[in-house]
Amino acid sequence: MARTPFDQMHCSVARTLDVLGEWWTPLVLRDVAIGITRFDAIQRDLGVSRKVLAQRLGALVDHGVLRRVPYQDNPPRYDYVLTEKGGDLARVLLVLQAWGDKWVFGEEQAPVVMRHERCGQTTRPTLTCSCCGEELQPQDVTPLAGPGLADAGEDVAPEVVAALERLAAVGRRG
Amino acid sequence: MARTPFDQMHCSVARTLDVLGEWWTPLVLRDVAIGITRFDAIQRDLGVSRKVLAQRLGALVDHGVLRRVPYQDNPPRYDYVLTEKGGDLARVLLVLQAWGDKWVFGEEQAPVVMRHERCGQTTRPTLTCSCCGEELQPQDVTPLAGPGLADAGEDVAPEVVAALERLAAVGRRG
Repeated sequence: MARTPFDQMHCSVARTLDVLGEWWTPLVLRDVAIGITRFDAIQRDLGVSRKVLAQRLGALVDHGVLRRVPYQDNPPRYDYVLTEKGGDLARVLLVLQAWGDKWVFGEEQAPVVMRHERCGQTTRPTLTCSCCGEELQPQDVTPLAGPGLADAGEDVAPEVVAALERLAAVGRRG
Repeated sequence: MARTPFDQMHCSVARTLDVLGEWWTPLVLRDVAIGITRFDAIQRDLGVSRKVLAQRLGALVDHGVLRRVPYQDNPPRYDYVLTEKGGDLARVLLVLQAWGDKWVFGEEQAPVVMRHERCGQTTRPTLTCSCCGEELQPQDVTPLAGPGLADAGEDVAPEVVAALERLAAVGRRG
């Protein structure tokens, strides 16, 4: 079977990974999110080549995840800042970070903690249900065919269709 | 500056990306999470080479994210299932998916929707504060040096230390 490019897969996980591009990109977003917004500073922090960094920043701007804000005209220099779309993607980083805190370092040894400015407390980002507000346990969440799946036609593998039909019929614990 | 390998960076985002390994791995986890649990079915769905898939599944088992459950002895064949650690990582996929639903397909055209079995409704996974329960807006979350940062010593770039000190002093909106 021919490999489907990520940017053509009819799957929101694959398409988000396609925007992220490769492993450096989430770390570029992390830097921008903590206020390391200039090319040279990001480059020094990550130790990535200037060529690769320029490509990654350009792709994130093209995707509308970052925008450039000039801070100097001659030569032109920019701060990179998150757009609304990019701020939303920063949520993914919060959840990635929470996982690494728990499973790699242990929460008692987290390198970075998060303060929620609206309540002033150190927060652990928690995934909850938009309907009932309860914490979402992945085993309690059943994926079902959504409104856009029919549009995908033959781009969706029969394994996926079968798995979703099985889940719809018997539920996650069936 | 020499590039620091991801598995040595003192950052939970980088270390989680290191476990994920490369872009195929999140899609392997996605397949297992929706019940595509056997080697041949995952391979057909993703169209990835058998060699690459065997490496990725082996690495996820080594990391304790997946475990093998035999369903046939001769020749030995396995279902791959999420461990507790892997179920936690599936939360990252829920947030990735929500981002792609919103920004790539549009929520009205989401390929897959999620039913929360405890309330029976279609849910949109929402990131909330573990302290006050409010929805976390990334701009309201300030990263601060955590208990484990001192252990990292010179492995932490001065740009990161300076950015965290700036945020601690003036807050996210400073």
